[in-house]
Amino acid sequence: MRILIIGGGGFIGQRLARELLKNPPAASRAVTHLQLADISFPAGKVEDQRIEYLSGDFSDSRFLEKVFQDAPDIVFHLAAIVSGEAEKNLDLGMKVNFDASLQLLELCRKKNIRPRIVFSSSCAVFGGDVTKVITDDTAPKPRSSYGTQKAMVELLINDYSRRKFIDGRTLRLPTIAIRPGKPNAATSSFISGIIREPLNGQPASYPVPATSRFWIQSPGRVIRNIIHAALLDESQLGDDRIINLPGLTVSVGEMIASLEKVAGKSVSDLIAYKPDEFLQRIVLTWPPDFDTARANKLGFVRDESVEEIIRAYIQEEGVNIS
Amino acid sequence: MRILIIGGGGFIGQRLARELLKNPPAASRAVTHLQLADISFPAGKVEDQRIEYLSGDFSDSRFLEKVFQDAPDIVFHLAAIVSGEAEKNLDLGMKVNFDASLQLLELCRKKNIRPRIVFSSSCAVFGGDVTKVITDDTAPKPRSSYGTQKAMVELLINDYSRRKFIDGRTLRLPTIAIRPGKPNAATSSFISGIIREPLNGQPASYPVPATSRFWIQSPGRVIRNIIHAALLDESQLGDDRIINLPGLTVSVGEMIASLEKVAGKSVSDLIAYKPDEFLQRIVLTWPPDFDTARANKLGFVRDESVEEIIRAYIQEEGVNIS
Repeated sequence: MRILIIGGGGFIGQRLARELLKNPPAASRAVTHLQLADISFPAGKVEDQRIEYLSGDFSDSRFLEKVFQDAPDIVFHLAAIVSGEAEKNLDLGMKVNFDASLQLLELCRKKNIRPRIVFSSSCAVFGGDVTKVITDDTAPKPRSSYGTQKAMVELLINDYSRRKFIDGRTLRLPTIAIRPGKPNAATSSFISGIIREPLNGQPASYPVPATSRFWIQSPGRVIRNIIHAALLDESQLGDDRIINLPGLTVSVGEMIASLEKVAGKSVSDLIAYKPDEFLQRIVLTWPPDFDTARANKLGFVRDESVEEIIRAYIQEEGVNIS
Repeated sequence: MRILIIGGGGFIGQRLARELLKNPPAASRAVTHLQLADISFPAGKVEDQRIEYLSGDFSDSRFLEKVFQDAPDIVFHLAAIVSGEAEKNLDLGMKVNFDASLQLLELCRKKNIRPRIVFSSSCAVFGGDVTKVITDDTAPKPRSSYGTQKAMVELLINDYSRRKFIDGRTLRLPTIAIRPGKPNAATSSFISGIIREPLNGQPASYPVPATSRFWIQSPGRVIRNIIHAALLDESQLGDDRIINLPGLTVSVGEMIASLEKVAGKSVSDLIAYKPDEFLQRIVLTWPPDFDTARANKLGFVRDESVEEIIRAYIQEEGVNIS
């Protein structure tokens, strides 16, 4: 089985690669070839003889054609310009988040190869009235260009699946917490930052009131859900390929309290409130309450608690708490 | 005030032009200049010294730039490849329904002119479970490439309005009935055909069971609603510019019965059932039941009955019924 990860140099891409090699998604078919395509790859990237690293710009059609020379059976499409950057640079966001995704679908259509495609969309497609519970039938009303671009690709994935050019599965990811490494340009970056930085002995801040609630999922669960999406039989999905993943609703205050419980007050005291109007204007339009009936029925999983998420992060990243 | 109608050669475009000249949308500002852009214009097109006809392809960027040389105050964007054709020719549908619409928005952004744009979308953005009532919060789940393309442009109109590049208003039009003239390539064409052709002494057929229900609106009401959309103050709309227009839910059988009541059995006897699988696969995924609370509150209007629609058509088109 040939697998391609677009955005394979990112944190989720690398972790997905590691997991796919360790536990092949289809028991009956070994992963013979794993291509990771991205602009750049991290130091200490996953090494394995089955892995081929392809450096290039996903929004460059020649690069994409090259990557597709050996038709993949499964494509994990994780590449994106994150929300903060897409809001500040509309052209770049459209080019990578929308145009390149369309190009990918068109390539499948023109080459007539119909791969299974797992597309990572985002709960940032929702916005506006944050008091309502989001269901599987709720209209995406993004309040960011990132969410707009993701919502448009979702529609294309559905249409190209309906027309049998691809076999798509769209996952709307909750905010991923806790991301290891450095802060990024995602408007949600602080949600990881307020746990990660203090555990590292560094100060951190949050730009929204502590009562603000968010819909989160741990990296471990996200990986499990992404692989689960690739394993679902098409007949379980029908024409609608969009799935709201089951997350956990937590307030910033609850996250800080959980951190204090796990790592002590000296750690949680490193966190301060620093209001930021640009970030508030986007992240406070994300509804935090979901009813993910469809995902639950299809076997997708959620985290149990913030404490569990923090403990998993400490273990996975080998954080030393005294 | 300068007004541009893209798709000004079509039936709705022509009728809108006539109405705008007769009853200018803003009482305080006369229509000084009315540009009608389209691929072609009908014989007997509206003539007036304020009208400028511009023949060209809306999806050709040079044509669009030319049209935009004199910045319009209001743009009515009615141009589209209709549903049946967009389903059969994906490239053409994408080019006109999506790419050209994006180009229009980009032109506004780059020229920094921020016109008011009324975009005619369609209730064909909905699809799938036809037993549910569609509300203002229901997710578009199109089951056609036409609906997909329209839904993507809706998202762009919202985003470009939010970013203040345009002042957009998206109307999801019910199926327009009764269209005068000839059948077209819309998958809904028969809904007008079963009334229009028999009134003309011609046979007509419908491709779906007579119990199939549709969401319709007369041309007269559509024109009133399109102009009403252009008059709404931005503050009444906020960030969500999408409006489901209030239609009328009717079955094919009810339409035939109303025709018989208005024009007699000899006329309605000209209608026959001719199943068509291609058409059924698309039109039977359109939900016929809507709760249009938002549109009602904003002052948009619906028709009272099919009988009223048929009588208005007979009067407007000067049909002779013996």
